Amino acid sequence: MIIDRLFKAVESRGPVCVGLDTSSKLLPVSLAAERPLTEAVYEFNRRIIDATVDVVACYKVQIAYYEALGVEGLSCYRKTLQYAKGKGALVIGDIKRGDIAATGEMYAHAHLAGDFEADFVTVNPYMGFDAISPYLPYLREGGKGIFVLIRTSNPTAKDFQDLPSPDRSLFMRVAEQVEHWGEESRGECGYSMIGGVVGATDPQELVAVRKAFPTLFLLVPGYGAQGAGGKDVAAAFVRGNGAVVNASRSIIGAHKDRPDGDRRYPEHAREAVLAMRDDIRRWLK
Amino acid sequence: MIIDRLFKAVESRGPVCVGLDTSSKLLPVSLAAERPLTEAVYEFNRRIIDATVDVVACYKVQIAYYEALGVEGLSCYRKTLQYAKGKGALVIGDIKRGDIAATGEMYAHAHLAGDFEADFVTVNPYMGFDAISPYLPYLREGGKGIFVLIRTSNPTAKDFQDLPSPDRSLFMRVAEQVEHWGEESRGECGYSMIGGVVGATDPQELVAVRKAFPTLFLLVPGYGAQGAGGKDVAAAFVRGNGAVVNASRSIIGAHKDRPDGDRRYPEHAREAVLAMRDDIRRWLK
Repeated sequence: MIIDRLFKAVESRGPVCVGLDTSSKLLPVSLAAERPLTEAVYEFNRRIIDATVDVVACYKVQIAYYEALGVEGLSCYRKTLQYAKGKGALVIGDIKRGDIAATGEMYAHAHLAGDFEADFVTVNPYMGFDAISPYLPYLREGGKGIFVLIRTSNPTAKDFQDLPSPDRSLFMRVAEQVEHWGEESRGECGYSMIGGVVGATDPQELVAVRKAFPTLFLLVPGYGAQGAGGKDVAAAFVRGNGAVVNASRSIIGAHKDRPDGDRRYPEHAREAVLAMRDDIRRWLK
Repeated sequence: MIIDRLFKAVESRGPVCVGLDTSSKLLPVSLAAERPLTEAVYEFNRRIIDATVDVVACYKVQIAYYEALGVEGLSCYRKTLQYAKGKGALVIGDIKRGDIAATGEMYAHAHLAGDFEADFVTVNPYMGFDAISPYLPYLREGGKGIFVLIRTSNPTAKDFQDLPSPDRSLFMRVAEQVEHWGEESRGECGYSMIGGVVGATDPQELVAVRKAFPTLFLLVPGYGAQGAGGKDVAAAFVRGNGAVVNASRSIIGAHKDRPDGDRRYPEHAREAVLAMRDDIRRWLK
């Protein structure tokens, strides 16, 4: 089951999830100058993956950066997923789609079976269970998983997610549903194929979700450039597992402002992963 | 301003929004047999647009159907938007994206300026104002608009949208915020560039939103195949304007099971639009 693969990856390679949010601003100057933008992005991703694949749990590829580059960008997104999978890595398509019935089935097909096949995708729960159910056939077979947005890491997440609804916050209600939806698709590791996204920028929300739902696998954004540190994200873990922590700019942009960054960007990314892994592991004792 | 163009289109051509959710199942057999699937979809869309452009307010293109066909499908999505705009039609990209900060900016660029440029896009509000703000620069210039999901038309919309939060339903809270966010971008028609999606399958929710927010332009799904009729959607209108009503299968699938459907699918679509327009207008007196 895919969640067991992720569990084992965290165990053996650590809980870092590298976000391939590859903006043109992060590309080394020489790389960007030599070829069309989408080819430069792919080359960059490829070399980042090569340099980090043995020390990360998975990659999260933010599709928005590729959509912004149009049809060619989406071809680059597809190639990036394929390259990572070819290296034996697990990939999360960060698509945050959320739609219903036949439309939801189209998204599920596109991102868990079709051209853009990932191992996991992120899903937006606003439309209710109808936005989740189209993914279930892919989960039941054990090959795929999803992470449902529960409490995001941005400042205005509170606009709706923190509203009392009515006896507890909306995000806690969503977490409860996510736990419930996932009950029938648990792996041997005890976690289900339906995990949740809970940001670490408001640590008390993360603590509340983890305490109430100890068997929910968590995808935790907010580390690094968004402000959370090892101590904050440690609350997501249960005996050193059950979560992956995403960082993007602090890893794939680690070469910026380094004198040798243009040439040695893969090594800088690897060093940033190792430092982040150490920072998290220190708090997991 | 784009909302004034939509207002005038409703006034002169009626409130029907044709959903180009072009599933392969809806394609006439002969059309699908003659060429690659994405070319057949484009040809189908092109002929539906030609046959209906003078009697509809706008088109809504559901990107999920194109994503399911991969990179080629997204090329077809782009061509469909371009074709409709070339015919002078307004197009809504039904993308339901919702993401924050730099990521949100990528989506806004992709769908309001880049390869997939539409006139309006749909946006998911779960992540709060941070998921809306990336679109504002495009709105302030007057050229683009968005529709924020408020109360959707699917059965489990109630899972979260109807929760008391705490003094009114979550969707009413979202509607209130949508109204507030749009205050600074009103057109001459009085409506703002930030409208809302409110389904007609639960008419009392639609009545509640319209009553509380009379100057919110509404995109209303749920007509036809999803069960709502002219009487239900009439509640969305204020003096015959202020809303567009989307239908997809009942229009672009109107040729199915007709003896001459394979050949005359554009005419069947046009007849379905005219019947729907009459059905709605009857209740707007």
